[in-house]
Amino acid sequence: MAPDDPQGPGMYDPGLAYTTVAQTNLSHLDPGGELLVGGYPIEELAVNATYEESVFLLLNGRLPTEDELATFTRRLADRREIPETVRDLLAAAASEGLAPMTALRMGLAAADLGEDSDAPRETAERVVAVVPTLVATYWRFREDKDPLAPDPELGHVANYLWLLTGERPRTATVDALETVCVTLVEHGLDASSFAARTTVSTESDLVSAATAAVGALGGDRHAGRFTEAHEILTAALSGEAVDSELRDRASDGAVPGFGHPIYRARDPRAAVLSAALDRYDEQQGAAVSEAVERLEAVASEIIGGDDPGADESGAGDSGDGRTQQPDASVEFPATALLEAVGIAPALFAPTFAVARVGGWVAHALEGLREETLVRPSAQYVGEPKAAWTPVENRHTAGDRIIARPPQSPSLEPVSETLDVLSEPNRLEILLALYDSSAPVAYSALHEATSIADKGRFNYHLRTLRGSFVVQSEAGYALTEAGERLVDAVVANERLLGEEIS
Amino acid sequence: MAPDDPQGPGMYDPGLAYTTVAQTNLSHLDPGGELLVGGYPIEELAVNATYEESVFLLLNGRLPTEDELATFTRRLADRREIPETVRDLLAAAASEGLAPMTALRMGLAAADLGEDSDAPRETAERVVAVVPTLVATYWRFREDKDPLAPDPELGHVANYLWLLTGERPRTATVDALETVCVTLVEHGLDASSFAARTTVSTESDLVSAATAAVGALGGDRHAGRFTEAHEILTAALSGEAVDSELRDRASDGAVPGFGHPIYRARDPRAAVLSAALDRYDEQQGAAVSEAVERLEAVASEIIGGDDPGADESGAGDSGDGRTQQPDASVEFPATALLEAVGIAPALFAPTFAVARVGGWVAHALEGLREETLVRPSAQYVGEPKAAWTPVENRHTAGDRIIARPPQSPSLEPVSETLDVLSEPNRLEILLALYDSSAPVAYSALHEATSIADKGRFNYHLRTLRGSFVVQSEAGYALTEAGERLVDAVVANERLLGEEIS
Repeated sequence: MAPDDPQGPGMYDPGLAYTTVAQTNLSHLDPGGELLVGGYPIEELAVNATYEESVFLLLNGRLPTEDELATFTRRLADRREIPETVRDLLAAAASEGLAPMTALRMGLAAADLGEDSDAPRETAERVVAVVPTLVATYWRFREDKDPLAPDPELGHVANYLWLLTGERPRTATVDALETVCVTLVEHGLDASSFAARTTVSTESDLVSAATAAVGALGGDRHAGRFTEAHEILTAALSGEAVDSELRDRASDGAVPGFGHPIYRARDPRAAVLSAALDRYDEQQGAAVSEAVERLEAVASEIIGGDDPGADESGAGDSGDGRTQQPDASVEFPATALLEAVGIAPALFAPTFAVARVGGWVAHALEGLREETLVRPSAQYVGEPKAAWTPVENRHTAGDRIIARPPQSPSLEPVSETLDVLSEPNRLEILLALYDSSAPVAYSALHEATSIADKGRFNYHLRTLRGSFVVQSEAGYALTEAGERLVDAVVANERLLGEEIS
Repeated sequence: MAPDDPQGPGMYDPGLAYTTVAQTNLSHLDPGGELLVGGYPIEELAVNATYEESVFLLLNGRLPTEDELATFTRRLADRREIPETVRDLLAAAASEGLAPMTALRMGLAAADLGEDSDAPRETAERVVAVVPTLVATYWRFREDKDPLAPDPELGHVANYLWLLTGERPRTATVDALETVCVTLVEHGLDASSFAARTTVSTESDLVSAATAAVGALGGDRHAGRFTEAHEILTAALSGEAVDSELRDRASDGAVPGFGHPIYRARDPRAAVLSAALDRYDEQQGAAVSEAVERLEAVASEIIGGDDPGADESGAGDSGDGRTQQPDASVEFPATALLEAVGIAPALFAPTFAVARVGGWVAHALEGLREETLVRPSAQYVGEPKAAWTPVENRHTAGDRIIARPPQSPSLEPVSETLDVLSEPNRLEILLALYDSSAPVAYSALHEATSIADKGRFNYHLRTLRGSFVVQSEAGYALTEAGERLVDAVVANERLLGEEIS
């Protein structure tokens, strides 16, 4: 009997897909296929704004003037340095081979070091400014190269490339990466941004919020999708049959890299980045876009249901009854562009963080202005209420802990019988037989108990034989008395539990 | 006109007070005033279990046998050491005077360093084991003392006290702190545990989850409540009038330190810790419990509504229409006990983390077994869709950015008039007058614009006078033509915005 729901009748919505948790000025995700960031369509923002401009827009609710943009760009550039202690930390992470997202989380959690202000607004700038330095410093250590000092004369995105490569990046390269970063800067309450908002709902700070967001982004179901899409695309580009690659990976109700749970139509960010990819293909004589289109054709078949494998894999059904869109999502063109500008695949996830951190801090600042503490409920489905058993009286029976029945004067008449059960090893043997519908062979019975020593096992089995256990050619089984006895113990256990609750 | 709701009709529940987000085996919070942890009433667990035993219970769903408990205790003890790099980090945090919770977040984020396993279960043990070391190491640096090495012969709680003080703690002290830690080990989905679960919903890792939880716990609305309760209690104990202290702090619909949003009756943890506090008072001849009782009497008056200040402060109404309980919540007896065992007030929040981390890792492991990505919606309430304005054409008007009207051949007949407006400073003056219902004095008008130079300001004002601005004794105002002109510009702005959307 499950206890009452903790907070009275409420909605059960584990993924929060049906719950609106905030009002926001930051972005509007229209299921029809439109994305506004700070009021501007992502198509316009992506090709026009610098990364700094997009972050200013999110933090201030409007675009900056020329002067304001120059000031803001300088303020970010002034906050890029990391202290020696954090550099040592990243070196240790690199030398132990920790994942790039782990290193980023470690470094970002220490972003208060060397920063003289703890005002939320300045901390937001610090957090945005320092992420590229953390990623690149770790990566240089990982590649056995000395880390480089940030160059305050370079813009945010150009400086990131500089820190990674030690070369002045070409304008076309910076533009392509800037487009990726602005396109990904903000996208509502994905798990990472929501982790940031949950963190500040207690009036916590911006570094904690962004660190929580990095942690959430690092999961396979979030930034890990970039890696998966990249592997599919790489396979397709290397001439492997795209359909088998996609079909192999279509499972859990979805073809990876296609559609987005929010949009009924094409993810508008995918359109923006596909256009950027076309431009890149044209410049380089490459054909990445074509490969993505071939993947889309296959995905369309799988999702459309014409495909014989579709039923089995469950592909096309996104789990909430909505059919998956067969349009390539943002992961394919984004990773293709990241690779094109020279970002190593291991850095796709951290580079996603370099882009999204602007949205995280904006959400955290917006959340700090609210007065609502986040405190959802969980439904208890665990063990029924039980009485405490002192540790010396516990023994295991299968997956459970069973208490030695208490010695009590009123039980003395049956104590001789109960004594058999109060021996943990014997009870184990009886329970193993009780759980089986057929007689159990000697070796199987021995294995079902935790008694390693054969002599001990034989001794206990012997004690039980006759009254409680009977041996036949098929193996060992409970006698009728044995059956009744275990019945009584199990019922008693249950009774004890219920009486107290 | 606000765009459509992103994910169709859903519930608006910013604090998630009406939403159940998970099924859990870990704890059951009955609004009637009962708390089960792993199936056991908190009253029994708190006085019987060691901290290790309570964590084993949460991680395994049952109590350990004697052997299992010994093994688990040893496994935790084996994972207490922190590497040199992390010690340096904590030293830096201490020398910069960073908050204890900030230091703990930094150190915990680096808990992968020096750990050879990344299996979730081992990471959970590592995280639980290392939190006391991180807190105590930071604190020793903060107090200008050398940090101490963990003692594997001591239990989890005893070792924490040893690391803080360098003295072998007395049994009574260990027992009191152990009771506090077990009482606080798990309490459903408060913001910190929910942050941990949100983090792993992307299939992220245990260190990320616990780091997110520490970040959320650090806020004033979470562990910060311990500090507030301690301040109230200290004031009451030092002889200050308890009623004025409480009345001063009663605001935002609640008297701090009383009631709990989940429980309609007394928080069962408060009862457990009050009993422990009574025992302490008896031993020490202290009267802390009495002071708490006096505070309860005052809170009861304030919340009961007999108090004249109640209406004003809104105290007693917890915001969801439920009346606040006048029973002292867990904060008063918990902080009183922490102080009694020698924990510095600055370490109340980190010690809360020392206790709760067992619940965090258990929630994270439970969450990892689920398949649900957390992805709530936000309702967009920001600026309506706007067209991009190149940076060189932007200027501010009050809080807004206004684009220079584009020069166009068809507009040439009116270009002379428009020219007046295309000058940002003049437009600023006109908009300042337009926003005011009464004439504006010269100095107020100057201040309302961004034109620092008085000569420039006079020049632009002169250009406008006559045709668009009129001067009277009361100050400056728009002429009818000026009014029409600004009307047209504002309408045009709106039109442009709407046409594009």
